[in-house]
Amino acid sequence: MATLVLLRHGESDWNAKGLFTGWVDVSLSAKGEEEARRGGRLLAEAGVIPDVVCTSLLNRAIQTAQLALAEAGLAWLPVKRSWRLNERHYGALQGKDKAQTREEFGDDQFMLWRRSYDTPPPPIADDDEYSQAADPRYALLPGELKPRTECLKDVVERMLPYWYDEIVPELAAGRTVLVAAHGNSLRALVKHLDGISDEDIAGLNIPTGIPLVYDLDADYKPVRSSYLDPEAAKAAIQAVANQGR
Amino acid sequence: MATLVLLRHGESDWNAKGLFTGWVDVSLSAKGEEEARRGGRLLAEAGVIPDVVCTSLLNRAIQTAQLALAEAGLAWLPVKRSWRLNERHYGALQGKDKAQTREEFGDDQFMLWRRSYDTPPPPIADDDEYSQAADPRYALLPGELKPRTECLKDVVERMLPYWYDEIVPELAAGRTVLVAAHGNSLRALVKHLDGISDEDIAGLNIPTGIPLVYDLDADYKPVRSSYLDPEAAKAAIQAVANQGR
Repeated sequence: MATLVLLRHGESDWNAKGLFTGWVDVSLSAKGEEEARRGGRLLAEAGVIPDVVCTSLLNRAIQTAQLALAEAGLAWLPVKRSWRLNERHYGALQGKDKAQTREEFGDDQFMLWRRSYDTPPPPIADDDEYSQAADPRYALLPGELKPRTECLKDVVERMLPYWYDEIVPELAAGRTVLVAAHGNSLRALVKHLDGISDEDIAGLNIPTGIPLVYDLDADYKPVRSSYLDPEAAKAAIQAVANQGR
Repeated sequence: MATLVLLRHGESDWNAKGLFTGWVDVSLSAKGEEEARRGGRLLAEAGVIPDVVCTSLLNRAIQTAQLALAEAGLAWLPVKRSWRLNERHYGALQGKDKAQTREEFGDDQFMLWRRSYDTPPPPIADDDEYSQAADPRYALLPGELKPRTECLKDVVERMLPYWYDEIVPELAAGRTVLVAAHGNSLRALVKHLDGISDEDIAGLNIPTGIPLVYDLDADYKPVRSSYLDPEAAKAAIQAVANQGR
């Protein structure tokens, strides 16, 4: 039986300001840092001890892993990072105010961009101040791989190779894997694990800072999954669903 | 031409208290955190941009790397960790007061333990509160590899395989490598690189928090080396030499 733990980063500076973030590399807010530490305490209290941690290339997920693991006395764990665990690229919406965008484009278009499975926002221009075209951390990605916008379907497609090639081999070696990542890269992974349909995935919100623990069978399919603080998870899911309203 | 950057962690809680630390996993003091950030600023200002960072398994080196890289906007760099970069194991002296030890055992014995190349302190008992015998981060090391005390010669011997097998291949691939580690694991590496004799190494002190940059030739031998803040390095070397006096 393999154990996989998912941890969504807590509030960032831009979550707090109500801006679309995507691949823009903002930091955790003080509240987000505390959420990360709380996630670490929940792991330690439950005796769920990862052997390796995987993060995206974005600071808010990296910080979340560092703070949670330090809190659990596990700062020394091996770390792997990949752009494949990054948040969904929000295209030309990156840096835009969520409430203003909703007002400007209307509820239907807004919800389509936020929640449709296969409609990406317009692509971001390479010279936009919030483009990652020149970001050195993606310098090794060929142009055709470097997103300028993404829908959730795109995230599933670029995340799955990481699941198969990097996470599954760790699980196969008997290691408990902690994935510290983002709302949409984790929704992509949960969609795959739980076999959620393209339609139903729109209704799934993963709360921030609360470890989600999966027990997996020999074929890496979930036998059981639960949040380490189910009551807090329920309340947080409701709060996320209200974002941008 | 390959570039190697060495960064010794800054003041820890136990440095501040004058205790022998070794493998005991203490955190950086507030001063040590600021030293780490300053190291990151020095890297950024000099345009020395690592491609990969290697740390020990001890928090004070891990924190130093995290704080320095975050300061330089490089928190996303790939990280590798190994016990082979750990501080020298200080044996039964771990947790003991430096000044008291000097008084109890006399100047000669004290300096022998601190600075001789091949005389380790007495080994620590497995049930000592400052032993790492049961520390889960070393669970994969066979008993004969897990030190109970070390002299600098022992550190050279266990560090060199990491240099050859993990750092050199990164340099060979054209990557600039940052090694965030400890006074004695870095002295061991500098001894090897600069061909310092067993006798002369006693006189070498590496200052904390100031990146030491090596340009290496095709055989990974130094062509040139310099601290990024030479004046501060000179002052700091003097301060370290006065420790325990």
